[in-house]
Amino acid sequence: MQFYVDGFRGGDPDIKNAAPNRRDRAEHAPLPEKVDVLIAGTGPAGLCLAAQLAQFPEIDTMIVEASPCNINKGKADGINTRTMEMFQAFGFADKVKRESYWVNQTAFWMPDPENPANIKRIGRVQDVADDSSEMPHILINQARLHQLFLDVMKDSPSRLAPDYNWSVKDVQVDTTTDDYPVTVTLEDTGVDWGVTKTIRANYVVGCDGARSNVRRAIGGKLHGDAAHQAWGVMDILANTDFPDVRQKCLITSATEGNVLILPREGGYLFRMYVELDKLREDERVAERGFGQDDMIAAANRIMAPYTIDVKEVVWWSIYEIGHRMTDRFDDVPEGEAATRNPRVFTAGDACHTHSPKAGQGMNVSMQDTFNLGWKLAHVLQGRADASLLHSYSAERWTEAKRLVDTDHEWARIMSAPPGESELDKGDEPRFVRAFKDNLEFTGGLAVKYDPSKLIGAATHQALATGQEIGRRFHSAPVVRVADAKQMQLGHLALADGRWRIYAFAGKDHAPLHALANWLEKDPASPVVKFTGQDEDIDALIDLRAVFQETFDQLAYEDMPSLLKPTKGKLGLQDHEKVFCVDHKGEGDFFDMRGIDRDQGCMIVVRPDQYTAHVLPLDGFDALSEFFDGIFR
Amino acid sequence: MQFYVDGFRGGDPDIKNAAPNRRDRAEHAPLPEKVDVLIAGTGPAGLCLAAQLAQFPEIDTMIVEASPCNINKGKADGINTRTMEMFQAFGFADKVKRESYWVNQTAFWMPDPENPANIKRIGRVQDVADDSSEMPHILINQARLHQLFLDVMKDSPSRLAPDYNWSVKDVQVDTTTDDYPVTVTLEDTGVDWGVTKTIRANYVVGCDGARSNVRRAIGGKLHGDAAHQAWGVMDILANTDFPDVRQKCLITSATEGNVLILPREGGYLFRMYVELDKLREDERVAERGFGQDDMIAAANRIMAPYTIDVKEVVWWSIYEIGHRMTDRFDDVPEGEAATRNPRVFTAGDACHTHSPKAGQGMNVSMQDTFNLGWKLAHVLQGRADASLLHSYSAERWTEAKRLVDTDHEWARIMSAPPGESELDKGDEPRFVRAFKDNLEFTGGLAVKYDPSKLIGAATHQALATGQEIGRRFHSAPVVRVADAKQMQLGHLALADGRWRIYAFAGKDHAPLHALANWLEKDPASPVVKFTGQDEDIDALIDLRAVFQETFDQLAYEDMPSLLKPTKGKLGLQDHEKVFCVDHKGEGDFFDMRGIDRDQGCMIVVRPDQYTAHVLPLDGFDALSEFFDGIFR
Repeated sequence: MQFYVDGFRGGDPDIKNAAPNRRDRAEHAPLPEKVDVLIAGTGPAGLCLAAQLAQFPEIDTMIVEASPCNINKGKADGINTRTMEMFQAFGFADKVKRESYWVNQTAFWMPDPENPANIKRIGRVQDVADDSSEMPHILINQARLHQLFLDVMKDSPSRLAPDYNWSVKDVQVDTTTDDYPVTVTLEDTGVDWGVTKTIRANYVVGCDGARSNVRRAIGGKLHGDAAHQAWGVMDILANTDFPDVRQKCLITSATEGNVLILPREGGYLFRMYVELDKLREDERVAERGFGQDDMIAAANRIMAPYTIDVKEVVWWSIYEIGHRMTDRFDDVPEGEAATRNPRVFTAGDACHTHSPKAGQGMNVSMQDTFNLGWKLAHVLQGRADASLLHSYSAERWTEAKRLVDTDHEWARIMSAPPGESELDKGDEPRFVRAFKDNLEFTGGLAVKYDPSKLIGAATHQALATGQEIGRRFHSAPVVRVADAKQMQLGHLALADGRWRIYAFAGKDHAPLHALANWLEKDPASPVVKFTGQDEDIDALIDLRAVFQETFDQLAYEDMPSLLKPTKGKLGLQDHEKVFCVDHKGEGDFFDMRGIDRDQGCMIVVRPDQYTAHVLPLDGFDALSEFFDGIFR
Repeated sequence: MQFYVDGFRGGDPDIKNAAPNRRDRAEHAPLPEKVDVLIAGTGPAGLCLAAQLAQFPEIDTMIVEASPCNINKGKADGINTRTMEMFQAFGFADKVKRESYWVNQTAFWMPDPENPANIKRIGRVQDVADDSSEMPHILINQARLHQLFLDVMKDSPSRLAPDYNWSVKDVQVDTTTDDYPVTVTLEDTGVDWGVTKTIRANYVVGCDGARSNVRRAIGGKLHGDAAHQAWGVMDILANTDFPDVRQKCLITSATEGNVLILPREGGYLFRMYVELDKLREDERVAERGFGQDDMIAAANRIMAPYTIDVKEVVWWSIYEIGHRMTDRFDDVPEGEAATRNPRVFTAGDACHTHSPKAGQGMNVSMQDTFNLGWKLAHVLQGRADASLLHSYSAERWTEAKRLVDTDHEWARIMSAPPGESELDKGDEPRFVRAFKDNLEFTGGLAVKYDPSKLIGAATHQALATGQEIGRRFHSAPVVRVADAKQMQLGHLALADGRWRIYAFAGKDHAPLHALANWLEKDPASPVVKFTGQDEDIDALIDLRAVFQETFDQLAYEDMPSLLKPTKGKLGLQDHEKVFCVDHKGEGDFFDMRGIDRDQGCMIVVRPDQYTAHVLPLDGFDALSEFFDGIFR
């Protein structure tokens, strides 16, 4: 962590200095008349976006929520490795790692062939493949994650907090102006129930769930159909003789259905998904009268000969699997993209819904708004043209589609009776095979954005074979030269809206020095062109160097000046730009990620941690051209 | 982390449920008339003790401080690996690791033989030897550590907070009673300045620094002398061309003296200790008029040809090296131990002072009260006889003496001009050699308590050659069987006043099962004898098992019942008692710590993480006898 750059200040370094121009949040202070961004809904998508935008106090962000406060329990609980990497950028991954359940192994149970009325463990799979991510796959109460985002907001320069008890009732866009063109009608859901208030916004983001009013207002419709398969979910404190209750388990009984066990934080709590029976086409789940006792009874039948003795049901719900999504994630009608930029967006459940069992929904929702956040910041800071915002729907719709398709397939696999599916072939049960095949996907690591203005062509991909353009930058160990600290290179990425260029030195250091000097001084350099006069030199594009020598073989004093810039109010030198391979054997970054040892390369990484480009160290023109396509 | 054992409760799991009988801390609520423990002083020693005792709401603890609030900056900054292990038990090691500077390498600079007016790097030493501890050696603002302890207190069941603006003026012990025999006179240092108030306590702990009133009241005198060597210390934000400014550096110039550089948290701040010149015998440091400018000038002379451009002096001080200690750390006069138990203790600077340069003072102070805390708790909970408290002075005085001696030697080494000391011999400069020789000591890892009622005889030491009786339990990787989680075995130790028995299974599992069954059921078992009827079975003695197989070779369902106890209000099963060696190759505990693979063994660990005993798995009588010597 870096702090004190503007002078010493005691206390918790996660609490940033408050910006003087922030909104007055004193009791009885009025709501603002105009905001830059209005976010509807304080679920994971909304809070992730709010936490991101809160870092930019010059952007007026408002987040409204119809409920009176944060939730306390229930809802989603799965955080995949990719989301944990994002939490690292927000600064609370360590906290989550400490208090969450880690999914280390997934166990599979099926009917015992010798006694099909009883289940039997048929195998286990390591849940996070070695070196697929430096992060664990974890499970934790969704409410707690909300709180961690709320803490980031509270501690940010803008001291952002939700406006509770306000629901977004309507959204109208005036396409003839750029002066707060979106009019939002809020309805009081608290003591002044029903009172409405209008706020004008430059942008509105609907993170208001599957029944989104924002989606409805921009004419979005969820397509697809529910699979009419009812599942019950319950978070319980219970004792059992089932030996794998502290491992993620997929359990298939011969005749009673399926159970999914997800152990949870704290060592005692766990979640069970219990398959209930098929519903009729015209039947609504709520009408069936299923309750927690039905679920507990079903679980005991499915898990025979083991029994579950429930001591406390913390939360439960019954739901139908639905896989649905909208045609687009913004308000620009098809065919009008050339003449009109988006003003209203939807994210998370507001534009795509899934079955919860692959543990993807909450993750994809947050990744939606992590994709959108830096783009909104770029536009509102005047760094990029508003047309940049088209890329949100373009990039995220494709991923949501892939998720819906995969999820649909997975639900089909899980619901079919064992041995009676066309999918059963070979020695390995279908769900073990499907589970293994899906691990990269369920880890959130399969996302790959198509080439665009924001994603370069793969011309020089061979210089970094393990860092695929369009996919997330894959961290690996390095050592910081100035203080010989072992760390993860990917952890340099903070949720601060900045771009990173990782320059990997080849055998000869001269090309890297030339790149640093060009970036610092050449009129064609994006650093020179696009960094504001009052800004630190790394405020927009942050160069870091990685050498293949060990720290004690390098002379820190010889590093180019862009790698030792002076910053902040005091003009203090930054010592955290120069890295090298790990001298203690944790792994050589160049080997682990296929970096060309002879030529080196540079890797351009977006503010959302996705690899935007791989270029040779002397690829000045291509680099210049790439950023010219984004910034103005 | 384990939580929800008494039922689900949302929010931050570090915030414990508040105890109903805790002190009323509402505004204008009166101070208590009587307390079990009164702590004087909110430095590291006092806060560490308060944070420990705060876990036991049945113990009325009060901590007073003459200042109006926590400090903001300055004072000590070094936390050695041993103290980090203790922070792990308090739950904030991860937080400290995240925001602190890590001392990875120490660099040594001496006059360049070819140009003695300039300094030159002569070598580097890895600061924390491999596998000496799983923790880093770190540097951080002392004020921040105070806050982390204050947070632990605030979040504890007793919601303990300091009573600021009260200084302890006098302490009187009535040796004729056991009914709150200590009378403490407090003096208001706030708005009612000078007003006094009397409080009666069962125990008083003076953590009130080098000028301790508590020490004075019990007739303690600091012996030893100041070395009359003046050093300046300053925490600065500065730029420099000195390349190692982000590494710990010991710098010796030819004629200008010595500098010690300690980089600090945040990436920009660093501390410099600058040697000033000798003082006359009769001269007080304060009279010399040294100031920050003198220090900066001296540093620039010493570090030539490099220069330091100071942008902000955050804090500075001038001090003389002093190595002094008292004859005893409690109020029992020599020769009266058999007839009188201690009622008043001193800890930290109140009973031993040191030069700050080896970074030991703050660490030893906290280790003092971590040693005392569980003993006070045992006595006040009625578990142990009050004579247990004699062991505090016995154990800690010996360690303090060793520290003073080592520190004195180190100061002598650092102050002698290079090449002019009788200590210079061989190829390696004296301070590099001394530094290396001292690493285990400066890490806080050399502490070894002598055999006593609390430290068993080394009869069976051969069963665990890497876990020396009397030294701190040395952690190593294991895997938790229930959920296949890789972790550090030592991290099971929380600051909760409990004893741990780690049972390592030999080739045959039967002896471990026999031990578990004996502990659970035999009338001679300390678990049976000393655990309260209303307490969880592991409330006092916590058995954990470690197997040399990997997790998938073990059947969790076959484990003895004491390793799967039911606990808490709901009677929930604890799944976190059974461990095995790491299946992913992080290291085999049995190999790393010399555990006898054939016979196994049990290791008894005290609440302060010190290894109290090593016994064979069937050493029932010896185990019974050991605990009979402590509990009643």
